[in-house]
Amino acid sequence: MNADNLPARLGIDRARVDARLVALFDARSAPSPRLDAAMRHGVLVGGKRLRPILVYAAGRALGAADEDLDAPAMAIELVHAYSLVHDDLPAMDDDDLRRGQPTVHRAYDEATAILAGDALQALAFEVLAGCGLRLGEMVRTLAEAAGRDGMVGGQALDLAAVGGHPDAEALAAMHGYKTGALIRAAVRLGGLVAVSAHDPRLAALDAYARAIGLAFQIHDDVLDVTGDTATLGKVSGADAARDKPTYPALLGLEGARLRAAELVEQAVESLAPLGPAGAPLAELARYMIERDH
Amino acid sequence: MNADNLPARLGIDRARVDARLVALFDARSAPSPRLDAAMRHGVLVGGKRLRPILVYAAGRALGAADEDLDAPAMAIELVHAYSLVHDDLPAMDDDDLRRGQPTVHRAYDEATAILAGDALQALAFEVLAGCGLRLGEMVRTLAEAAGRDGMVGGQALDLAAVGGHPDAEALAAMHGYKTGALIRAAVRLGGLVAVSAHDPRLAALDAYARAIGLAFQIHDDVLDVTGDTATLGKVSGADAARDKPTYPALLGLEGARLRAAELVEQAVESLAPLGPAGAPLAELARYMIERDH
Repeated sequence: MNADNLPARLGIDRARVDARLVALFDARSAPSPRLDAAMRHGVLVGGKRLRPILVYAAGRALGAADEDLDAPAMAIELVHAYSLVHDDLPAMDDDDLRRGQPTVHRAYDEATAILAGDALQALAFEVLAGCGLRLGEMVRTLAEAAGRDGMVGGQALDLAAVGGHPDAEALAAMHGYKTGALIRAAVRLGGLVAVSAHDPRLAALDAYARAIGLAFQIHDDVLDVTGDTATLGKVSGADAARDKPTYPALLGLEGARLRAAELVEQAVESLAPLGPAGAPLAELARYMIERDH
Repeated sequence: MNADNLPARLGIDRARVDARLVALFDARSAPSPRLDAAMRHGVLVGGKRLRPILVYAAGRALGAADEDLDAPAMAIELVHAYSLVHDDLPAMDDDDLRRGQPTVHRAYDEATAILAGDALQALAFEVLAGCGLRLGEMVRTLAEAAGRDGMVGGQALDLAAVGGHPDAEALAAMHGYKTGALIRAAVRLGGLVAVSAHDPRLAALDAYARAIGLAFQIHDDVLDVTGDTATLGKVSGADAARDKPTYPALLGLEGARLRAAELVEQAVESLAPLGPAGAPLAELARYMIERDH
């Protein structure tokens, strides 16, 4: 794969996971049509599908077949989508707009949004249950990354940090939980489809995932300063308005960009044990800090 | 086991699962101590532990060892506890009191309660991941029972029913999702520790679980009318005050009691294929409509 067709490749993977998510919702009629519609709204309206793309890329780099990667790709996106639905709630970030559309609690109601998020998390594990091989390790990976020692733990730290003044290290630790844990899980789940938990290439993938996870977050903070609402699909400048600690605030805009670029080079170096098979992952890492939304 | 020592046996199982849940929380320090404290509050403050008791009873009836039943017993209680935390939220039932204590969003705050519920659900699957045998079937059982086609689906139907006038059949369908699905999952998980998904005794256990699930809910509605707040640990008369449809309202108090008793006898008859091994489950079924809280 060369740099020219990376966007095309990303579009294909995005379409692949989207089609499977639509099929998942179409396969059964839920007892509550309103809940079902809210869940669909939370998952199917837009989204970069970065985490599924990472599942596919990591799995392929270690030799997994695409069809075996669909279930973990869907599962990780369902967890990500549920977290956005809950994050947007009035008691949390109180956002009206997500991916250019009304948030779930604005399109439906608050109770339905809470339940839709809850059901999306359960659905993630239901989907993952279809992975025959190394299922214990996969369920543990997703559950740990999603819960108190991962994403939700990071969200709790983030809530506590609003209005505070953490240093760059504390900010990195918070993001390591809040967004990093799920990105690491995406890469690990893809890898686990191909190889056992003790394969040293999984450690290489994990170092890669740690670095791109933080680079991704720094780039997100940069976009919040430099992007416009129409391109982002969410309100730009929202972090500063909420007095949320960000990398541009701590390191300056150029300092933040430089740090993200360093992390991407570090991610690429981590891929050495994979040889040429790691090239698409390296490309993906570079792409992550070039995107404009 | 005779009727005299059933309460003692229940106390032993309750203490067993409580000790394991405490150990689970003590084993690791979470990144956010506030989130961790809220999760503990949601799980460890009181609770009848009915669902873990059903896991143990169903598993033993089919020959499982107690130590193999601990993980599913904990997992089902973690899902139940998370659902109560979210159910009590201002946007849902807006309850201040649960098990005689302030609800999680009253003791902490609303955002923390949302996150604590989310993390408890993830923790349930993390714990379940430790079950080696038939893990795919077990994860699917818990996830389906917890999600849109089970508990959360039922909660969504319940929200839509407030102020409406469903008949007894519609009410049974709603409860079949809202509380029945998790009770059936408890019994099935216990059974799956001992036998494969195709064992006909699992079907017998499922018929038993369906009947006691509905009997349990009818008895809960009866207690809401006849119990007092101190014994229940939650505000009595709350259903009527909210104009929630209930069995006593539909069938009269005596009619509701009669229906619960019929269901329990039906549950006991379902246990025939288990022979004498089913006796403790039969006792448990009868106990469920005699309890006063």
